[in-house]
Amino acid sequence: MSNHQTFRVWAPVPKKVELALEKKHLPMKRGGDGWWQTTVQPSAPDCDYGFVLDGKGPFPDPRSPWQPNGIHKLSRLVDHGAFGWTDADFRALPLAQAVIYELHIGTFTPAGTFDSAIERLDHLVQLGITHVELLPVNEFSGHHGWGYDGVDLFAPHQAYGGPEGLKRLVNACHLRGLAVLLDVVYNHLGPTGNYLGKFAPYFTDRYHTPWGPALNFDGAHSEEVRRFFCDNALMWLRDYHFDGLRLDAVHAICDQSAQPFLEQLQAEVQALAKQKNRHLVLIPESDLNDPRLIRPREQGGLALDAQWSDDFHHALHCLLTGERNGYYEDFGTLADLAKALRNAYVYDGNYSVHRQRRHGRPPTGLAGNHFLAYAQNHDQIGNRACGERLSQLVRPGRLKIAAALVLTSPFVPMLFQGEEWGALTPFQYFSDHAEPELASAVRVGRRKEFAAFGWKPEEVPDPQARETFERSKLNWSELQDQSHTALLHWHRQLIQLRRREAAFTDGRMDLLKTHFDEAARWLVVERGPITIACNFSSQPRRVPLRAGKHTTLLASAEAIAVADGAANLPPDAVVILKA
Amino acid sequence: MSNHQTFRVWAPVPKKVELALEKKHLPMKRGGDGWWQTTVQPSAPDCDYGFVLDGKGPFPDPRSPWQPNGIHKLSRLVDHGAFGWTDADFRALPLAQAVIYELHIGTFTPAGTFDSAIERLDHLVQLGITHVELLPVNEFSGHHGWGYDGVDLFAPHQAYGGPEGLKRLVNACHLRGLAVLLDVVYNHLGPTGNYLGKFAPYFTDRYHTPWGPALNFDGAHSEEVRRFFCDNALMWLRDYHFDGLRLDAVHAICDQSAQPFLEQLQAEVQALAKQKNRHLVLIPESDLNDPRLIRPREQGGLALDAQWSDDFHHALHCLLTGERNGYYEDFGTLADLAKALRNAYVYDGNYSVHRQRRHGRPPTGLAGNHFLAYAQNHDQIGNRACGERLSQLVRPGRLKIAAALVLTSPFVPMLFQGEEWGALTPFQYFSDHAEPELASAVRVGRRKEFAAFGWKPEEVPDPQARETFERSKLNWSELQDQSHTALLHWHRQLIQLRRREAAFTDGRMDLLKTHFDEAARWLVVERGPITIACNFSSQPRRVPLRAGKHTTLLASAEAIAVADGAANLPPDAVVILKA
Repeated sequence: MSNHQTFRVWAPVPKKVELALEKKHLPMKRGGDGWWQTTVQPSAPDCDYGFVLDGKGPFPDPRSPWQPNGIHKLSRLVDHGAFGWTDADFRALPLAQAVIYELHIGTFTPAGTFDSAIERLDHLVQLGITHVELLPVNEFSGHHGWGYDGVDLFAPHQAYGGPEGLKRLVNACHLRGLAVLLDVVYNHLGPTGNYLGKFAPYFTDRYHTPWGPALNFDGAHSEEVRRFFCDNALMWLRDYHFDGLRLDAVHAICDQSAQPFLEQLQAEVQALAKQKNRHLVLIPESDLNDPRLIRPREQGGLALDAQWSDDFHHALHCLLTGERNGYYEDFGTLADLAKALRNAYVYDGNYSVHRQRRHGRPPTGLAGNHFLAYAQNHDQIGNRACGERLSQLVRPGRLKIAAALVLTSPFVPMLFQGEEWGALTPFQYFSDHAEPELASAVRVGRRKEFAAFGWKPEEVPDPQARETFERSKLNWSELQDQSHTALLHWHRQLIQLRRREAAFTDGRMDLLKTHFDEAARWLVVERGPITIACNFSSQPRRVPLRAGKHTTLLASAEAIAVADGAANLPPDAVVILKA
Repeated sequence: MSNHQTFRVWAPVPKKVELALEKKHLPMKRGGDGWWQTTVQPSAPDCDYGFVLDGKGPFPDPRSPWQPNGIHKLSRLVDHGAFGWTDADFRALPLAQAVIYELHIGTFTPAGTFDSAIERLDHLVQLGITHVELLPVNEFSGHHGWGYDGVDLFAPHQAYGGPEGLKRLVNACHLRGLAVLLDVVYNHLGPTGNYLGKFAPYFTDRYHTPWGPALNFDGAHSEEVRRFFCDNALMWLRDYHFDGLRLDAVHAICDQSAQPFLEQLQAEVQALAKQKNRHLVLIPESDLNDPRLIRPREQGGLALDAQWSDDFHHALHCLLTGERNGYYEDFGTLADLAKALRNAYVYDGNYSVHRQRRHGRPPTGLAGNHFLAYAQNHDQIGNRACGERLSQLVRPGRLKIAAALVLTSPFVPMLFQGEEWGALTPFQYFSDHAEPELASAVRVGRRKEFAAFGWKPEEVPDPQARETFERSKLNWSELQDQSHTALLHWHRQLIQLRRREAAFTDGRMDLLKTHFDEAARWLVVERGPITIACNFSSQPRRVPLRAGKHTTLLASAEAIAVADGAANLPPDAVVILKA
């Protein structure tokens, strides 16, 4: 790093911008494009700085690479050239061969840091994981939180270990052969510490999101807003060596333009991939069931790599738990789950009772590896009043069925931290806002949300209570317990099987066949020579198989017998056979 | 019509709905789908009726086929089987062969009715028009108006002649070989007389339009909202024999769904076309420069037939007038016009100074007959403070250049009523709201809008003044004047030429070549064997031509000479040559 340092900021809104550096306010010069600039010689390369707008502030840099003292304080420069990467030999597997593990840094380990996460990577490798996916790590309000309320989108959260810590984690993953994906939020910013609007028209009032003002991706000055987010994506992939991004709730990225932001982002990420000879992926979460997101360009698609498949989750969850409240009212039959397995979307243009309208569009011709499948994730656990995992809701046999269906699916399977051993710790909603009003609003809002489902206020954990966060941390000592290790072993076996048998990662959904008996509650899935037979009922079932000899690859219970063209399954059991 | 009449209305909002008929309130029965129904025996088939919602009203039927007493009064049934159509032999020409004539019923003739318009159809036939396009004819507030503030979207405006009058006009057009298109507004409803929200969730607060609440095309209950608009389109095409619809400002149809409303509309219209063996078209107006609207389905498009091309208009208008205010700041060079001719969009992803962002997307591979080209239209005239036509702004020679470029373009040409003779009557913004507050708001709003461009309030015509409407009526006696008939003759000759020479209707824009000299202000367009040479300058110009012998097909001035590889053009002149 040279002694001279150039500071730049896009700030067309204020009339005067000064650099706050070492307790001085230094003048900056405005260019015609709304960017202000100055070159100075700081006493140290990692000095703290901020911007003073029309005499007010200093405010942190919208593109702050580091907020060592939190969201309201000064920014600090990071020299991305200084880290000693040792992962040059790493190559990420394509998604079609991936098994993803979603984890939240703050609760994955007791210490809740990037460095402490490194100590648990070998567990993931032994499990057979190929891709780690981190919940957002951008700087957000307070010490702990889910991360979706980030406001310094270029700065790794200081409480997790800041920029250096994150690089150590990614490097450590790569050394173990694990690719790393990052969850990024490009649809809104958090409710506090968001100073972007003081600098420039990052937001628009033409659209609204459920979480605050919508970002300006298609109005005046949207070029620079797009640059902000594209540069953010490129930074994670280039400077932090991430192998891909999960794009949070892209249905809330409101953008009517003829060349949408997501298309530009995809093109810029693929240009980087080509330049670096790396495999980089973008995985949107979307509530639209619109295959346009993942269709190729020549079909008018945005060519994103894969999308989260909530329909599969909901269909499976309802069968396992019997729950029908909220959006689960749209699911609950074996026919739904069978359709999800064959078509990814259960709603592909048919009428949704919950939405009170038709929903979705058929993903005709798309392969299953454009969809992520999961029996649990941070949202589906954490958006419950008490954040219960499936392991707290259903019998162990059903956990095994869930794992078998996810890990033998034509989709890209994903597990949520601790799911592999049936962790009994919840994953609750927690936040750490310092502002009393905001803290109270979050607390009241959460309780109000669940009052609609019959929960009393005192039954809903207080998101602002430290214990809610602590309670949500994984308890690794559970792995001393045989019941947990048995489930862990089941997951390992399934992942090994998925790797060994090519039929599992064949994404052609139209080759997958399903048979089921809605009343008897059994389901058979056929994938090439493989048959997966599940009994969701609490009675033993004789499940008919196609003709031919079957070898048992994996059985969830000892009492399973295969003979005379049928599998005899005890309650809550699954068997995987090969013809 | 049977003696018994069934009345139905979709009204999930009120708890009780009654039919108001012949001064009685009759009970209606609610179905599970939110539709209320009753069958009664009215004393006359054309009795007036309305709906009483929770004891309030009666309100007109949202799908009222006829509002004989205006937007706030009772509805009247129409028996669409009763009209004596005699147009069974009519077949509409495809758009690629069309010349469209946009007209506003209220100002096209002194009487301003459907019937009086019939008297002028022979003028259009003699001009060479193939398609008449009517500004909206749905029932709107008051006696006169542009029609975009319609509230009874199924009812032809009573002051124009109501349902029977409209059928007589369409039938008369068809008998003369003229197809008829109708302008429909599916993005908002007018500010008064809009009772739809009392019946059902037709509107949403998730989006906004510049003109009022957005319609609910993708939220809960949007199925029925879509049915309302699809049924409206089908009614005009089926019961009124229209040959197509112009869809007003589709960028304000906010719809995030995986199967958008416009796609459904297109499919339903084409199903009707197939069933009836007719040629039916949908022509959106869009501010997005997004070719997705008109791309085929297999490329992810919505497969609409053609879109209005404002970029072509603006490029031409700026060259002709020298105007650069408002959105015209984005245009003004010969390069812009040449690009519009070769590419339809001047903005196809490049930066727009006016919009302060990139705009549009290349329409690669699309033929020119997916775009409408015009030198004038109701909006571009009427949205000026004083509604001046081009004939009031530029010299006659330039009107001839404009006509030549529109009518020799690879696009579908469109003229605005009176343009063909250089009518000197303006087309101003006029309305006739009865409510004093609304009248005042429209008046003040209009004056405020133009104050931003330096207009004093008294200079802007009062939209509510009857004279503003009367002043905007065509003055057909202008056709007694030789200067007007000369321009009319010019248009006739151009249209005849367009029909005769196949090169003109060849929509392949990539075959069109342009040459120009920005400083000398001449432009040459080559279309197959045809050359169009224009001099936009106020000096004579020697315009170089490609090698070979050229025959003059049409010249705008007598002084034009073609020799020695060049056309010698006086100021404001155009010549059309054939090799």
